[in-house]
Amino acid sequence: MAISVDTFFLNPHFQGTLQSQIQQIIAEAILSGRFRQGEKLPSTRKLATHLGISRITVTLAYTELLANDYLTSRGRSGYFVSENAPEPPSFNTLRQTEDVVDWSRAIGSRYTGGNALSKPQNWAKYKYNFIYGQSDPSIFDHANWRLCALQALGQKDFFALTSDYYEHDDERLVEFILRHSLTRRGILARPENVLITLGAQNALWLTAQVLLTQRRTAVIEDPCYPALRDILSQSRCHVVPLPVDQDGLPPDTIPPHSDVIFTTPSHQCPTTATMPMARREALLERARDIDALIVEDDYEFEMSFLKSPSPSLKSLDEDGRVIYVGSFSKSVFPGLRLGYLVGSESFIREARALRSLVLRHPPGHTMRTAAYFLGLGHYDALIRRTRNEFAKRRDVMQTAIANFGLQIASHETHGGSSFWMQAPRGTDTEALAAKLIEKSVLIEPGRPFFHGRTRPREYFRLAYSSINTTRIPEGIELIAQALKEG
Amino acid sequence: MAISVDTFFLNPHFQGTLQSQIQQIIAEAILSGRFRQGEKLPSTRKLATHLGISRITVTLAYTELLANDYLTSRGRSGYFVSENAPEPPSFNTLRQTEDVVDWSRAIGSRYTGGNALSKPQNWAKYKYNFIYGQSDPSIFDHANWRLCALQALGQKDFFALTSDYYEHDDERLVEFILRHSLTRRGILARPENVLITLGAQNALWLTAQVLLTQRRTAVIEDPCYPALRDILSQSRCHVVPLPVDQDGLPPDTIPPHSDVIFTTPSHQCPTTATMPMARREALLERARDIDALIVEDDYEFEMSFLKSPSPSLKSLDEDGRVIYVGSFSKSVFPGLRLGYLVGSESFIREARALRSLVLRHPPGHTMRTAAYFLGLGHYDALIRRTRNEFAKRRDVMQTAIANFGLQIASHETHGGSSFWMQAPRGTDTEALAAKLIEKSVLIEPGRPFFHGRTRPREYFRLAYSSINTTRIPEGIELIAQALKEG
Repeated sequence: MAISVDTFFLNPHFQGTLQSQIQQIIAEAILSGRFRQGEKLPSTRKLATHLGISRITVTLAYTELLANDYLTSRGRSGYFVSENAPEPPSFNTLRQTEDVVDWSRAIGSRYTGGNALSKPQNWAKYKYNFIYGQSDPSIFDHANWRLCALQALGQKDFFALTSDYYEHDDERLVEFILRHSLTRRGILARPENVLITLGAQNALWLTAQVLLTQRRTAVIEDPCYPALRDILSQSRCHVVPLPVDQDGLPPDTIPPHSDVIFTTPSHQCPTTATMPMARREALLERARDIDALIVEDDYEFEMSFLKSPSPSLKSLDEDGRVIYVGSFSKSVFPGLRLGYLVGSESFIREARALRSLVLRHPPGHTMRTAAYFLGLGHYDALIRRTRNEFAKRRDVMQTAIANFGLQIASHETHGGSSFWMQAPRGTDTEALAAKLIEKSVLIEPGRPFFHGRTRPREYFRLAYSSINTTRIPEGIELIAQALKEG
Repeated sequence: MAISVDTFFLNPHFQGTLQSQIQQIIAEAILSGRFRQGEKLPSTRKLATHLGISRITVTLAYTELLANDYLTSRGRSGYFVSENAPEPPSFNTLRQTEDVVDWSRAIGSRYTGGNALSKPQNWAKYKYNFIYGQSDPSIFDHANWRLCALQALGQKDFFALTSDYYEHDDERLVEFILRHSLTRRGILARPENVLITLGAQNALWLTAQVLLTQRRTAVIEDPCYPALRDILSQSRCHVVPLPVDQDGLPPDTIPPHSDVIFTTPSHQCPTTATMPMARREALLERARDIDALIVEDDYEFEMSFLKSPSPSLKSLDEDGRVIYVGSFSKSVFPGLRLGYLVGSESFIREARALRSLVLRHPPGHTMRTAAYFLGLGHYDALIRRTRNEFAKRRDVMQTAIANFGLQIASHETHGGSSFWMQAPRGTDTEALAAKLIEKSVLIEPGRPFFHGRTRPREYFRLAYSSINTTRIPEGIELIAQALKEG
């Protein structure tokens, strides 16, 4: 039987080459049982005419499918579905029915209902995008990332790509973190002090699982990164939220029975405050006095473009009580999911065993690509370019904010990628955000960052990490208008 | 000051091009403060002569560093360390001291000391490699994986690569799993029934965390995948190990108070037994009778080259009580870390929220690359090639095993990638493995797969997934000799 050209149609939204689309149509039709073994494909000429594309494209697609044994060619008679082509399953697929299982009983622990931030999946389509944490194609060094990824796909790196690392990490990446990233933060460490994680969130989760139990107390900053609160509530420890001031977390408010203190000294999340040197020393002293550990999320230290970065808490730590969390997901791109933990060997050993239990290891290709990107200097170049661009945007933001009479909530900072804003008293910034979305403006309401029942509603965050400078004044004006309208 | 050529030397073990090595030497020297701003680099001619390489290589390295702002060029006077080059940190790094922290007290939960298998990191250097679960460069379709990875790095996929997916998965990958992988297992599912995970281990871990608590009972096969026992002991549930027979898990031995049954019906791990159809139905009936859930790890179903694969338990499940675990890490390569869960929406929702808490999402690039590899038919071609090759190796193994008088412990099987072996009574296969390693033979002792205190020592696993056919007879002979020597 011959397959009619009429069963072929091109999808205008297909992402990929025409050739790959044709391969895909045929492969799927075989897999789903629509095209059967021995059936004759349309000739390349016929199919090309039918689809209005070049004949060579069809020929290339057929040739690729020949190589993959989906098709065979019988000399001049043309192309046929191969007898070695995969067969669709012989048994019928089950129709969907109502579950008999009572899931309300069957689920032992619930994880939904957390505080995690969310944003529209299609955020890139909004014109005035003041949301935090997405990559800007105009800044990111896509070309060199691609080259490094390609290098990591080479024959030389076959085992780095494919191997099961078990508990291990990519040695080259660890080496660069030790020699490159950590030396810049004043931290001297050995490989056994470092664990590669699936981003900073994974690092914080592992840390909480190792250090905290129902009988222990964690101190967090209020406001803070919302997912941290979810992580701590899963660990069932006692959580003490401490309000931050213009210098970040105030050490003298830390209660004496605290076990672990979570802090973001470089740029407090979300207020962007940078902790001054004197307070860093006071915080370490307080931790020493009460024998607590400190988890330092070195959030956006790279973006200290207004002043040079302060030494990390870990670099001042003589007792081994600071656990350092670093991330490449923020500075390279969030989809990368790559971060690391630095701490004493006894701690890292447990965190490594837990990571191995939960997910074994981060994908080999991701680790090796990052190692090349760092090692060839592209990472530093990217950071420099980002800082320069953010400094410009920050200037434009600051001018627009002043011109349109908006109020910045946090003043003293070393840079970063956002402003922490305060709307007039009584404003509900969640309602404000919902209203602005209709004008293609995206902002982040501040409420999810706060702890407890009476969380303030008048704060919001304005990031400038993914917005073009030329759009900033218009966007700020729209926010100011919406605020005036109440 | 000019930098002397004598500070440059090539590392013969460097993995990468000469050009990238030179870039790296210079970048590192700048970052560590050895080369300082304004210092003059050796001329391209001098450096090329010194290193004995082509001048164009040096020029290309310098040009790349110019673009990255590590170097500047001053017309004819040559290349200098740029004033915009990154500066080494101004503060001193702390010397390493003894920890003051008492880690035996500070660690709240311990995760070390589990059963996880391990193998030499340099396993590829051993001549007779009978260990399981590493990629064979002679089978894997490296070229097409590379092309798909490259496509996923393209401009069109910029957001797929870089975005924060939060709770979401790559839509294209989910679509292919639904239409391609699951239809072959007779499973009809919607996107809300699927969650992408960091490999099968991550899928099993998430499942255990959602379904099991201290008050619940899990049934496992004995022997089984060792990491599953670690996962369950972390969940603190009650664990009932049930000895498997030649057909896998016997349903009539499952105690009535069981909540969740973990099973590997396609190829029991490690005995390789395939559960017959009648027992699959009996297992489902038993689960229905006692209202238990089943977690089906569809381990190596792709490798059923001796008979066609049996329908999955999930395809026979009318109640929604089967949770299906699939993996690409085994069939593509272990370092990929990509698997998936299929189950009822209520369950998937909780597993998704937990995944989001622990690690957010698998890296975007990994998901998109796999979507292309599946969609273009390369995955099926790889599976077919692997099956053909494994069938050949299995024949050679079987002959050699018979010739040298070794004993296979499990006979009825549909294929797979290993034999489950039984040494003469009284043999300690851990001692055997240690002895064989000196003769460049790697085998896996069976003890870690068993549960309890009196775990048999005479079993071992012989995989043929990473060994060349020509080496099999010699390897088996060495094992037979070692067994005879006692």
